[in-house]
Amino acid sequence: MRHTFQELDQTECDYLLSSVPIGRLGFDFGGHPMVLPVAFRFVNREIVFRTSAGVKLHAVASNHPVAFEADYWDEVHRTGWSVLVHGHAQEIENWEEFQDKERLGLLPWADEDDSDRWVKIVPERTTGRRIIIEGE
Amino acid sequence: MRHTFQELDQTECDYLLSSVPIGRLGFDFGGHPMVLPVAFRFVNREIVFRTSAGVKLHAVASNHPVAFEADYWDEVHRTGWSVLVHGHAQEIENWEEFQDKERLGLLPWADEDDSDRWVKIVPERTTGRRIIIEGE
Repeated sequence: MRHTFQELDQTECDYLLSSVPIGRLGFDFGGHPMVLPVAFRFVNREIVFRTSAGVKLHAVASNHPVAFEADYWDEVHRTGWSVLVHGHAQEIENWEEFQDKERLGLLPWADEDDSDRWVKIVPERTTGRRIIIEGE
Repeated sequence: MRHTFQELDQTECDYLLSSVPIGRLGFDFGGHPMVLPVAFRFVNREIVFRTSAGVKLHAVASNHPVAFEADYWDEVHRTGWSVLVHGHAQEIENWEEFQDKERLGLLPWADEDDSDRWVKIVPERTTGRRIIIEGE
């Protein structure tokens, strides 16, 4: 028995992104890499989440490239998967699009009074890997 | 009932880092943020993991700052925590230290034939947050 990697195609990556409630946003913050968890939804091939005017929103305003990672790990069977998205984050400022996101009913990672900003990441490149058990 | 953040102290962060098998390494890769999952151990206040001569080892060789994130999320109760470590990754090349890590019995995220390199991150700054339920 051997655990090995299998590359995932776009359809599988999209499906898996839709299957988990939490992902992690990776971005540069003044020369230091940051990785912060966010409660998100993957809708219309966009990653969307709510945030407040803090560090995550800085990643948006800076217009630097961001990474978004989601994964699942089964410690007992030592199988799992991970998906990594590269793109640019942007704040949703268009009123209709904002209202559309509000209807998702998505709560932020924690409800802070000022978590009233919506951010989206349009994937420019998505890669994923599954760990499978080969042979016996 | 309201979900809110509570900052974690060093002891709590260390305890939580020891409680999960998987974390995520965040680093800059040629101007693009990367976030990759790793199976790790937190021993002697160091994050250690195995890897092969790939992208993760590049993060080490470059001697750039790295981030390491671990989290837990209970979707039903909407409670959880996250810990973020900042530091520098370095490959373990000292033979005695290498042997010491080999005795941990830690398997890599997937066993590739060449996952025979050990990396450690000595935390320079650790922060963490717990999401708690306040009131009723």
